This record gives sequence, C-alpha cells and structure tokens, in this order.
Amino acid sequence: MSEFTHFNEQGRAKMVDISEKDTTVRTARAKTSIEVGKEVYEKILNYEIGKGDVLSVAQVAGIMAAKQTSQVIPMCHPIPIKGVDIEFEWKTNDANYVLHIFSTVKTKGSTGVEMEALTAASITALTVYDMCKAIDKGMVIGPTYLKSKTGGKNGDYFR
Amino acid sequence: MSEFTHFNEQGRAKMVDISEKDTTVRTARAKTSIEVGKEVYEKILNYEIGKGDVLSVAQVAGIMAAKQTSQVIPMCHPIPIKGVDIEFEWKTNDANYVLHIFSTVKTKGSTGVEMEALTAASITALTVYDMCKAIDKGMVIGPTYLKSKTGGKNGDYFR
Amino acid sequence: MSEFTHFNEQGRAKMVDISEKDTTVRTARAKTSIEVGKEVYEKILNYEIGKGDVLSVAQVAGIMAAKQTSQVIPMCHPIPIKGVDIEFEWKTNDANYVLHIFSTVKTKGSTGVEMEALTAASITALTVYDMCKAIDKGMVIGPTYLKSKTGGKNGDYFR
Amino acid sequence: MSEFTHFNEQGRAKMVDISEKDTTVRTARAKTSIEVGKEVYEKILNYEIGKGDVLSVAQVAGIMAAKQTSQVIPMCHPIPIKGVDIEFEWKTNDANYVLHIFSTVKTKGSTGVEMEALTAASITALTVYDMCKAIDKGMVIGPTYLKSKTGGKNGDYFR
Amino acid sequence: MSEFTHFNEQGRAKMVDISEKDTTVRTARAKTSIEVGKEVYEKILNYEIGKGDVLSVAQVAGIMAAKQTSQVIPMCHPIPIKGVDIEFEWKTNDANYVLHIFSTVKTKGSTGVEMEALTAASITALTVYDMCKAIDKGMVIGPTYLKSKTGGKNGDYFR
Amino acid sequence: MSEFTHFNEQGRAKMVDISEKDTTVRTARAKTSIEVGKEVYEKILNYEIGKGDVLSVAQVAGIMAAKQTSQVIPMCHPIPIKGVDIEFEWKTNDANYVLHIFSTVKTKGSTGVEMEALTAASITALTVYDMCKAIDKGMVIGPTYLKSKTGGKNGDYFR
Repeated sequence: MSEFTHFNEQGRAKMVDISEKDTTVRTARAKTSIEVGKEVYEKILNYEIGKGDVLSVAQVAGIMAAKQTSQVIPMCHPIPIKGVDIEFEWKTNDANYVLHIFSTVKTKGSTGVEMEALTAASITALTVYDMCKAIDKGMVIGPTYLKSKTGGKNGDYFR
Repeated sequence: MSEFTHFNEQGRAKMVDISEKDTTVRTARAKTSIEVGKEVYEKILNYEIGKGDVLSVAQVAGIMAAKQTSQVIPMCHPIPIKGVDIEFEWKTNDANYVLHIFSTVKTKGSTGVEMEALTAASITALTVYDMCKAIDKGMVIGPTYLKSKTGGKNGDYFR
Repeated sequence: MSEFTHFNEQGRAKMVDISEKDTTVRTARAKTSIEVGKEVYEKILNYEIGKGDVLSVAQVAGIMAAKQTSQVIPMCHPIPIKGVDIEFEWKTNDANYVLHIFSTVKTKGSTGVEMEALTAASITALTVYDMCKAIDKGMVIGPTYLKSKTGGKNGDYFR
Repeated sequence: MSEFTHFNEQGRAKMVDISEKDTTVRTARAKTSIEVGKEVYEKILNYEIGKGDVLSVAQVAGIMAAKQTSQVIPMCHPIPIKGVDIEFEWKTNDANYVLHIFSTVKTKGSTGVEMEALTAASITALTVYDMCKAIDKGMVIGPTYLKSKTGGKNGDYFR
Repeated sequence: MSEFTHFNEQGRAKMVDISEKDTTVRTARAKTSIEVGKEVYEKILNYEIGKGDVLSVAQVAGIMAAKQTSQVIPMCHPIPIKGVDIEFEWKTNDANYVLHIFSTVKTKGSTGVEMEALTAASITALTVYDMCKAIDKGMVIGPTYLKSKTGGKNGDYFR
Repeated sequence: MSEFTHFNEQGRAKMVDISEKDTTVRTARAKTSIEVGKEVYEKILNYEIGKGDVLSVAQVAGIMAAKQTSQVIPMCHPIPIKGVDIEFEWKTNDANYVLHIFSTVKTKGSTGVEMEALTAASITALTVYDMCKAIDKGMVIGPTYLKSKTGGKNGDYFR
C-alpha cells in the first residue's frame, strides 16, 4: 500500500532519501489553462501577430520556473533538468476564450519531474495573468494537473 | 479604456514605470483549491491530528513564495511585503475531498500585491501535491483566482 | 577628493551605510552590444519577423537580471526597482552585424541604479550569446558602459 | 505580556502584518565565533599577510547573506538593508585560537534587522569553516547571539 | 600534510576542481542548539501539542537551506542533495531549556555535504530565534559543529 | 549546417533536450576587461598591497555568479560546476590602465560551460565597476568573449 513519504519519526517533514534510486531518463507533462475575456484575448492575439508577445514572456517565465522548482517546493529534490518545453493552444467560442498551457520537462536523474512540470505550467499561467491584469482581474487559472509521467520504477502514468 | 501596460515601443516587454505611484497600504486575497482522493484526505487529517502536518509545510512554502514572486514573474515589481497569511478549509462529501486555500498579502508600496497572493496560493497547492503524490498523482489544482484587492488609485476589487 | 567607499577599517569590504541618503527618483541608462556574424544576424531577423524571437527572450532575461542585481554584486544595496526597459538597435554594413543594447532602470530610492542598468544590459547580451552559440561561438560582447544617470545629490552624469 | 507573533488562528505560521509600523533607522549587531586549531590559525594569518585571505571571502559571504535573510528565514520580512559591516578579532593563547566575528546591519524600515545580523554572522563563520575544513573538520562555531539592537518602538536592547 | 585548498596562485580564492573525484554516496551530520528561557520553552511546547508548531517551520527552513548552501557559501560546490532530515531534542532542567538540533544530509556526488548539514542546522536554529524573538532576544545559538561524515576517499569522520 | 536550437515549433523558446548527450569533462575559458583611470588604478593597487582588496571581492562575485548562471540565462541548463577560477592581469601604459579578467569553469556534465565562464567574467568586471564607481563612472567593460572550450562531441574551440 502507498504511504506518505515526507514525514520523519517525529511526525515532521523531511526530504526523503533517494540516493539508492536509479538514474534514468524521466519525463513529466502538466497542463493548466487561463480563461480570459474577449478584450484580453484579442489584445494577446494582436500583439502575437505584431512584435509584442505575452505568450513569449510567459513561456520564458515557465521555463525559468522549472529550474527554480526545488527552491520553492520545500521537500522537492534538486534534479538536473535536461529540457523544458511550453506549448499554448487557444480554445474559443462566442463566449469563452481559454488559453491551454502544456509543459513538458525531461531529466536524467533519480526522481521524477512532476513538480517541475506543474510549477512551470503554473508560473506560465500566472505570468499571463500578470501581463493582462490591468485590463481584467477576473481571469481564472486552472484546473492544473499532471497529464503524464514516464520513467522510474513505479511505472508510467497517463491521464 | 484599459490598455496593456507591459510592452515597449518595439512591441516587446518592459517593466512599467511606477515611480510616480503613491505609497499606500494595499492588500490582495487569492483563492485556489486542490481536490484529493479519500486516502490522501484521511492521511492529511490524521497527520494533522498527530504531529506530521502537510498543511504546515505547504503554508510555509506559500509564505516564502510570496516573497519570491518578483523573481519568478518577469514583469512583476519587487515590493516590500508586510504580511502574508495562508488559510485552509476542507469541503468534503461522500465522493469529494477538496482543500480550499486562501492567501492574503499586505504591502505598503506603490503597486498592488495581486501576483504575490496568487503565487502564494499556487505554491501552497503545489506543495500539497508534492507531499501527497506518492499516494495519488491524479490530484487537481484550481480554479485559482483573485478574490479581492484593496488600495491604490484604481479602486478596490471584489469577486 | 573622491574616495573608495567599500572598505572598512580593517581594509576589507563592507556595504556602505546609505540610511541617511534621501529617497528620490533616480535613473540610469547603460549600453552594451554584441557583434555577430551574418548567419546569426539573418536568423535572428527572420525569427523576429516570424514568431520566434531571440531578442524577446534576451529582453526578459535583462529585466529579470535588473531585479537580481543586489544578489550577484556583493556590495550593491537592494533597492526598489520601479521600471526597466531594454531596447535594441542593429547597426550593420557589409561586413559587420552589431546589435546595440540599451537598458534604462528607474527607482525611487536612496542610492543609484547604475549597477542594475549595467547588469541588465550585460545579461541581455549574454542571453543573445547563449541562444546563438550553437551557430557561432566567436560573438563578442561590449564595450559595456554607463550612458547616463540622474537623481541623487552627486549630480547627473552623461557620456 | 509578550506573545508569540507568528501563528494564525489555525495555529499555523504566518508572516505578521507590519504595515502600520513606522519607518525608522534601526540597527542590529550580532556576534559569533569559530574556534580553530593552531594549523588553521597560522595558515589563515599567513594568507592574510600575503595575498590569500580566508577572512576576505568570509566577509563577502556574510554581507551577501544579510541580503538573502528573508529568503532563508521563512517568517522574516524583506527589508531594505542600508549597510552591513563584518569585523573580525582573534583571541588566542597557547592552546586556543578563536576568531570572533561581529556583524552590524542597518536599515531604514518598518521592522528590525536582528535576523539579518545573526544570519550574516552565521554565514561568515560557516564560510571560514568551509575554506579550512580540508585541514580540520573539528572547528566549532558559536555561541551566536544578538549583541544589541536600536530603533523601533519596543526600545533598544544591549547584552 | 594537509593544505588549504581554496587559493589560487595569486593568493585569491577559487572553487577547487573536483571533476576527477568519484561519485559516491556521502553523508554528513551536524549539530547545533538554541538555549531559550522558560517562557519560550513552554510556548513552543504548547503550540507543538496544539496546532502551531515553531519546530515545524524551523524544520522546513533547515531543509530548504540545505538546498541553498552552494548559493550562500562562496566556494561550496553545487551538489545533488538526495535527502535531508532535521531532528529535535529538548534537554531541560530547572534553569535551562536547550533545544538540540541535528541535521543529516545525504548525497550521491563527488564531494561531501558537511557544509549542507552545518548550514541546515544553523538556519533551523535561526528560524527558532526568529519565531520567538518577540518574547526573548537573549536566546543563544550553538555551539555548532560537525558530528560525522561518511563517504569519499579521505575516510569517515566521527566526533 | 548549424541551426538555432532554442525555438519550438510555435517559434517560441524552449530549453533544448540534452538528456541523450554524454556526461564528460568540459571546460570553458572566457575573457573580459575593464579600463579604469589612473586614480582608480592606483587605489586598487594600494589596497591590494594593504588589506583591502577590490579584486578579492570581485573574484568571489565571479565565482558565485558562475553557480547562478542557469538562474539568470533563461535557456541555460543547470549543470554541476566542478571548478571555477578567476585570474587578473593589469596592462598599463602612460595613458591606459586595463584590468584583464580571465575565468575558467570546469564541469563533468552533459553540456558545455561557456555561459558559466562568460557570466563569471562579466560579473567580476561589474563588481570592480561597483566598488570603484564613486571615483569614476566612466570605466568601460569589455570586449567580453569566449577564449576556449574543450570537451563534448562538437569539438574544441580556441580563439
């Protein structure tokens, strides 16, 4: 049966020992989204066509956040990130403008990169919010979740 | 009419000049949530009653993240954070176990702290995910959004 | 006569006391450049016209670096940065392709932001190098220098 | 009567609200020490006379650590540090070689800088340890304590 | 005979080359303590029994500090930390209330983790100080020292 | 033919996947310089003879910057740095006082350390500027460029 792995004998947190785990290639893919209004949607699009680019800034933020994950998530192990990719996909209809955000992180290390992928996606979305909040503070982020992971002895995960 | 504020004449991003804005007390409150399964829910609860405490670690992570916001959100101004509070509230029924997370950030500065509140809430939720993911990788974070802001010349915001 | 200001009585470094200096609006503007080959020049241009954008990533890096200046320059005071802008200008002829980089930083604080402007310009150029080094490792950065500063009791500086 | 100030209603930690506290000049001075063996003592001294300088590196580390304090101490407010000074004093006799380390930190802010002074002193000592540990792993750091604080409405403190 | 390892030919510091050292499992264990007064002792205990928990926040701080060690100690190599554990033990009698703090750090890398263990212990103690200083500024930290190290070609160390 | 390696299919940036690249010893050496006036030159020299040491602080800054490279250069992979060395060389005549700065970085990893060497050299020069700017704001940094790299399948590079 599965067990919590972050608590020591005194019932407090610790960073669990992974020194015996194998170094293998591992990937994780996470997804989030941000729902915006029509004005924000159109302005992002127009700047994307022109030279300004909200998504470009957000993408850089997401990539850099992947590298900072173990510094913001307390029990997360530092791990040598080998690749990060952030993709965007708009889904719109007459009333809804939703930017879907996918992050993919790859490592060759001794633990998975689920947290790196989830953190990258979250910071990407927060950066979109930051850059557009002067127009609309009502944008909603999420749901945010893991799409897949591969590598490691516990098997792959797909949602 | 509102306008994007992060692009320079060449259509690329800049950190907008706020040197003329007044220094006033400002607050922001954000909300997110994480839906977990029954096993995770019960284990968090039991450790909360005992000595281990997922929520305690997550809370520390959220507070520290508020202080790092301007280092992960590219166009976000560094601002002297004066107070951060993270609160939790479980909403459960027979099939659903949802941890609601509220963050409140206060500053006395020349711009708002919406990003600090949203980032604190997001990192708190991600930390809960990190600490419980050995049991269940299917947990879902969000929706994440701004609940309110006060202070500053553009008026208050409540959702 | 001017004096070194960073050494204590034992001849070692200290961060000098600025608690008595006035809080005023101050700006600094720095300049650097990076000389690239024809292939790099044309590829940057084409991606700028299309959707990829070396300069956009470099610009984000420069802005974020301005905020990290006091963490990498040992005796530099942390200061509330109020605005950062990075501009680019190509100067080319048949044999030379030089990207000129200008950074402008603004604060309302008790010391100047020369280091923030110089660091922002330097990191912007280094990011251009990083993104193009697979094509050409012979790119040359600089000269890097202060263009101007305003504000503070020591008077303005223009070059 | 004094009260703990870092716990919220749910008994968990929060960063307390200091937005109503006055902005005044505040100082804190902390002290620690590191006891080394004769070989380490003589080698530090000789390099100090020559060009290498353990204390110089340690001093830079201490100053930089003062600026990072609010990023490593979870409930510590970020505060604009205005000056940092690290001083050294050897006390030796036939059998003991103790390096005394004093740190002084100054701010003009709304809370004290005790933590910055204590952190600066601690990291200075740890850096001495790091640079000499190839010779001797038995060096002992501390006691580490606050020497004084001034400024703020709660009055000054001297030990 | 042992030699200082951090100085280059010009007598200044460098980060020594460890590229030829073997990658092996290495551990280090450090100890510090903080002496508090009766009021602080009782309040920590009561919150530990209830829901607030000074030690829990301090523990998270110590674990996160282990991961930041190479960013605060200048000549310390970045190393992939595989596990961190912080333990507490009270030793009290009628007049003294001393919290003993033990940190254990594990890596699979090419240099030891003594600095990570010592830094983790120190930041844990400083966090206890921070959270209780509104009651008592006279708390004393240390002595702080290495308890043991294992792994690496220079042999194990026990104190 | 060489190709840009940092853009994804949507024309935006990504951190390229290096998980299949071999782990080998790699080195990079970069060079920059800073031209100063006679007064700055003489004061640096005198403090070097005495106890204060601009170059010593700058050297520590450069070494620490090498370790932070992947946090400031967006698409730069985090890589285990195994050694860093910063050297100085004055070249002067009657009218010119130029400090030449050489940085050498070594890793055992799956990508090169050119950016670490270039960043270390740049931050070293910026620190010299910071410490002397009270005397002269007209100092000029650069040219900054790669001197050599070794290791990796693309062959060595020498300039």
